[in-house]
Amino acid sequence: MSTLDPEDWDAFRTAANTMLDASIEKFQLAREGRVWTPTPGALKARLARDLPAQPGGLDTITKQLIELLPYGVGNTHPRFFGWVHGAGSPGNLIAEIAAAALNANCGGRDHVGIYIERQVVDWCRTLFAFPQSASGLIVSGTSMATIIAAKTARDRALDYESRQQGVSGARLVGYTSAEAHACLARAFDMIGLGTDALRKVAVMPDFQIDLDDLRQQVARDRADGLQPFFLAGTAGTVNTGAIDDLSALAKFAADEQLWFHVDGAFGACAITAQNIAPRLRGIERADSLAFDFHKWMHVNYDAGCVLIRDAAAHRKAFANRPDYLAADGQALAGGEPWPVDFGPELSRGFRALKVWAHLQEHGTEKIGEAIARNCEQAAHLGALVDAHPDFELLAAVTLNICCFRYVRPGLSESELDELNESLIAKIQMAGTAAPSSTRINGRLAIRVNITNHRTRIEDVELLLRTLADISAAS
Amino acid sequence: MSTLDPEDWDAFRTAANTMLDASIEKFQLAREGRVWTPTPGALKARLARDLPAQPGGLDTITKQLIELLPYGVGNTHPRFFGWVHGAGSPGNLIAEIAAAALNANCGGRDHVGIYIERQVVDWCRTLFAFPQSASGLIVSGTSMATIIAAKTARDRALDYESRQQGVSGARLVGYTSAEAHACLARAFDMIGLGTDALRKVAVMPDFQIDLDDLRQQVARDRADGLQPFFLAGTAGTVNTGAIDDLSALAKFAADEQLWFHVDGAFGACAITAQNIAPRLRGIERADSLAFDFHKWMHVNYDAGCVLIRDAAAHRKAFANRPDYLAADGQALAGGEPWPVDFGPELSRGFRALKVWAHLQEHGTEKIGEAIARNCEQAAHLGALVDAHPDFELLAAVTLNICCFRYVRPGLSESELDELNESLIAKIQMAGTAAPSSTRINGRLAIRVNITNHRTRIEDVELLLRTLADISAAS
Repeated sequence: MSTLDPEDWDAFRTAANTMLDASIEKFQLAREGRVWTPTPGALKARLARDLPAQPGGLDTITKQLIELLPYGVGNTHPRFFGWVHGAGSPGNLIAEIAAAALNANCGGRDHVGIYIERQVVDWCRTLFAFPQSASGLIVSGTSMATIIAAKTARDRALDYESRQQGVSGARLVGYTSAEAHACLARAFDMIGLGTDALRKVAVMPDFQIDLDDLRQQVARDRADGLQPFFLAGTAGTVNTGAIDDLSALAKFAADEQLWFHVDGAFGACAITAQNIAPRLRGIERADSLAFDFHKWMHVNYDAGCVLIRDAAAHRKAFANRPDYLAADGQALAGGEPWPVDFGPELSRGFRALKVWAHLQEHGTEKIGEAIARNCEQAAHLGALVDAHPDFELLAAVTLNICCFRYVRPGLSESELDELNESLIAKIQMAGTAAPSSTRINGRLAIRVNITNHRTRIEDVELLLRTLADISAAS
Repeated sequence: MSTLDPEDWDAFRTAANTMLDASIEKFQLAREGRVWTPTPGALKARLARDLPAQPGGLDTITKQLIELLPYGVGNTHPRFFGWVHGAGSPGNLIAEIAAAALNANCGGRDHVGIYIERQVVDWCRTLFAFPQSASGLIVSGTSMATIIAAKTARDRALDYESRQQGVSGARLVGYTSAEAHACLARAFDMIGLGTDALRKVAVMPDFQIDLDDLRQQVARDRADGLQPFFLAGTAGTVNTGAIDDLSALAKFAADEQLWFHVDGAFGACAITAQNIAPRLRGIERADSLAFDFHKWMHVNYDAGCVLIRDAAAHRKAFANRPDYLAADGQALAGGEPWPVDFGPELSRGFRALKVWAHLQEHGTEKIGEAIARNCEQAAHLGALVDAHPDFELLAAVTLNICCFRYVRPGLSESELDELNESLIAKIQMAGTAAPSSTRINGRLAIRVNITNHRTRIEDVELLLRTLADISAAS
């Protein structure tokens, strides 16, 4: 009988091995060649084809897949410095093969995927000194984690009646700093409160949240009859890596009875680095924490986590299963509680597996050492920029991010913005390195983020040298 | 310098090959052995360990991963009949290896992942005869797809002011049948409208939505000053596989100016089966369509899709990028529009790749043939049940789902419920087959869902014989 399984298993095995060899080689040569290469027009043209009605040969498809490998975003290369991307690890290949063989839906039911995910959540509780009673979920990343945390906070604040009745009539407001990541406002949009309900609190010159402004805004909102319910601190802002004073925020949130969320997308993982961990103090007092494994921990995309201190609130904000998902406590329908009781997804792949394997392969100490090294590299780059006559720092380097720009006498601010933007594009196109851009106090910055275990000091030196060469020629 | 890359690449290669061999063997033996096996207590005990601080050996981890393989949910086995799970395909192994090597974040930027995802969305437009101007996104599954569709409908209905101002004061109401999947109500909860705002419309005896009741409810809500905005039809209900009259719903939605959504989680893919496609007529008129690749198309978990007719509305409901994500149209920051402009996730793995490879490997015709076969198998089971003195059908078999129960004279309804529930657990524990349960008109049903390209007629016959044996002994 015809199935979707291969008819010729030997040919299948050969194709899979060819793919595996090419993939291992890509990792092995991660230091070599260009950082980013634009997808060639000829390849794009070849990709454009009609919906296939007939089966294609596995050999052809494997060849096509191999052909794609050079045209990723470049984040496996040691001189990829854009946005905040992890560099991945070849060990993930092995875990992803296992996950593909299991083909598990981790929305629920009693199977090994559920136990592995619980173990990973348990490790996260340990890592961030959350109580054993806290709940958690492995998600695609901090965006989803933040939505889950914000919805739980929303529903707890409204006695869970919001689940049935909606938020109409609610006067909930939340707070975060002006440097916070956009995923927080996006979550407020998603859950029906609107982005205006997330107040942007001023930051101090070091880009940490200004507690005085926070205090004033909360008092003003209370006076206006609104209901402050949520406060988000940031452990590692996306622009400069600033870490809010989490202990002070935890105390303020407790005093004001606000849900205290921490956005630790990449920065939270610095808790594995002995010299940085003290700066994250207070994170263990959060009501919820969102962070990614695929950034500074280098698990492959995508994998993030939400931890929630009040597991009952978490479950009350998401649980509600119909007849066809009833868990009778017996056999395959057992395994309570199910992950679907803690998040919006009923279909969920087994992304916890690669996290589980990754943490076992490397251990937290080695991951922490790589993180500490990245911070030293950023500081080194900051010092080089500072000493260079043609470049200026736009923010102090306090973690792993260095924001600076090329300067040239006689140019206006907008001309400088344009020039620096073009430098970024040029160095990306040259294939030498890939920083990204942002704005710091209104100025366009060359933003170098180092979340890469493959990066060496000479990589950041080469970056600055090349930028100097390109700018001199621009 | 120390990195997270292996020091000994040969040893790494050996470990990866060992994992690949074991995974291929699992697929090759998919027909053999037990359907579902409870995770052994001894394995659970071994899984419980502290957060690893030190690196572990890759050999050990690979062995552990291989040890997990027998304890999945069982959906790769031809006699897995629970819920709606796809059976997967070994070809996904190859695509997942490529995805792991690329380690791409498909939230945005100009790289090959973006082009592949666009191609997959384009194929989906073709498959469902959506206009070329429609937008789409590859997501984890129908739950996420539904949230995205419902939020787009919400924001369009409120002139997008809801994004900033929230839904407070809005009087939006939506409609779907009482047999619709819970993900619709969950989406309403998520986006702040509340589950009460999603009206449950009565169904006819064939479990299709009752258009008269729909008409009356909309009229009543309008009379009450509410704002009807959303109507969801179902292409394949989870309980019985009923397909609403999508053409009639499309017309009603157009007349009433409602956003017409179709939940086609598994059923939509039956459009690839020539004999079923006509029953899906009207799907091409939907404003949004949510469906899964990981169910009846057998792409590995997780992979679903949302298509949205009004691409501008879709983008206006999600776009809004801050400085650090500015796309300047140049180099790596080009590639507009970015997927993050169409959904809640900024971090997104490259799940489009396995869909792309899968559709090329098998083609839609072969997938459709497997779907048609599953429907024949369900009909055959229905006929066997109907002819059997000890079993009764609880719903007509119209697609791929057969709901029935064992009956024994003299037992009360609640005793029958309990007995049938125990039969399901017993056959799962025996490892012979894995149906799940639901309730049909209040009665506990043995629910046999066939979304499995490996299932043969003799598998459903064995299921019924075994159930008869077990029930006789119960």
